Amino acid sequence: MKFGFPSFGNIRNYGEFVVSFDKRTRNANWVFEHITSDRLLRKDQEAVDRTKCQFTEDSSIHPYFRATNEDYKSSGYDRGHLAAAGNYRHSQISTDQTFLLSNISPQVGKGFNRDAWNSLEKLVRAIARKNKSVYLCTGPLYLPQHDDNDGKLYVKYEVIGKNHVAVPTHFFKIVIIETNTGDYEQLSFVMPNKALPPDVPLKNYLVPVESVERAAGLLFFEKLPKNKLIKVNHSKR
Amino acid sequence: MKFGFPSFGNIRNYGEFVVSFDKRTRNANWVFEHITSDRLLRKDQEAVDRTKCQFTEDSSIHPYFRATNEDYKSSGYDRGHLAAAGNYRHSQISTDQTFLLSNISPQVGKGFNRDAWNSLEKLVRAIARKNKSVYLCTGPLYLPQHDDNDGKLYVKYEVIGKNHVAVPTHFFKIVIIETNTGDYEQLSFVMPNKALPPDVPLKNYLVPVESVERAAGLLFFEKLPKNKLIKVNHSKR
Repeated sequence: MKFGFPSFGNIRNYGEFVVSFDKRTRNANWVFEHITSDRLLRKDQEAVDRTKCQFTEDSSIHPYFRATNEDYKSSGYDRGHLAAAGNYRHSQISTDQTFLLSNISPQVGKGFNRDAWNSLEKLVRAIARKNKSVYLCTGPLYLPQHDDNDGKLYVKYEVIGKNHVAVPTHFFKIVIIETNTGDYEQLSFVMPNKALPPDVPLKNYLVPVESVERAAGLLFFEKLPKNKLIKVNHSKR
Repeated sequence: MKFGFPSFGNIRNYGEFVVSFDKRTRNANWVFEHITSDRLLRKDQEAVDRTKCQFTEDSSIHPYFRATNEDYKSSGYDRGHLAAAGNYRHSQISTDQTFLLSNISPQVGKGFNRDAWNSLEKLVRAIARKNKSVYLCTGPLYLPQHDDNDGKLYVKYEVIGKNHVAVPTHFFKIVIIETNTGDYEQLSFVMPNKALPPDVPLKNYLVPVESVERAAGLLFFEKLPKNKLIKVNHSKR
């Protein structure tokens, strides 16, 4: 966490990734990862048996605030990873840990978790392979929308199961690329939690990081040396 | 805080009360107070000049996450106190601090902030006067409701102003009474943030504390010695 914590409170260190958990929404606030190209394996090199992976309650969280598999059942939502399982093909333990429900959010399956969001995760791994490493911060958003009836702004999100697990309206992924020359580049994605058209390029989901920070109540990579940040959302600074 | 913190993260100590601030909703998570009968003054003994009190931005909070007076302007909502100003008539400084916007939430004025919620604050002071002291934890809730259209549960709340200050759907106040014999009694109130009928007795808003804990993502007074807790919501244990 050498570039700072996005926020404090309810932090769990799972070795290869770090989770800050929001006890009210039963979702993470954010999940932090550092992925180095040397630890990324291709699918055909996989050292992990996926059939052994099971979504598991996080027993470190008080039962009042913990999401359960039962909460997801018949909800219609996928159990979507925040730290992607595919980032940890070198380690059974780390892969298993990504299946802890504190790293999981309710995601629309078809058109999102299994498609656009999955494409974003693959893009990040492709970037990591070509560079020294990537730092990632991933999490849910609950964005307001105008109500046509009264013109006011409302946050509205579904909650599922007995434990009222919040269904985020959007997800963010902030990517810091550590280039082979030791500089940094930043990409900030926000994607709505719904079936997205398949032909939209991922760069269309790039947004100013400040808008994510304001909406999430978080500050990302505050301690990153700004003089080494040479590109933001593909534009030179 | 001898009975424990309801949660950690973003805590401010304002001398006579303690605030945990939620950077995403721009409201407090909770405000903690300890009111002793000897420090409670009657209105006619007031040592405070209320005309000097002004609602003030909390400069200790990052500008991205801070509520401003501008956010409340033309919103239709009162700037409602969580730690009540009336609890601090003995101290100009403490009264002023209750006007920091980190201790304030958007509240419906008529029928709530100026009426039912105010009655609850007066009730608490009346209880404190007759006993050794009261410990208070007050904060906002964002409770789900069934949507008639699809029968699903949704959390829905308005956000106001440029900074999207959340308008809580409900407020809680957890009261621990330290009796003159050194025992404890607990009262847990939840009131909807709307104009409430004037003839409803406050005891109708009593709820099991567990329901507040689950909804708020907080645990209240965990370290209170349970063998000394003799009454809960007026019922003997």
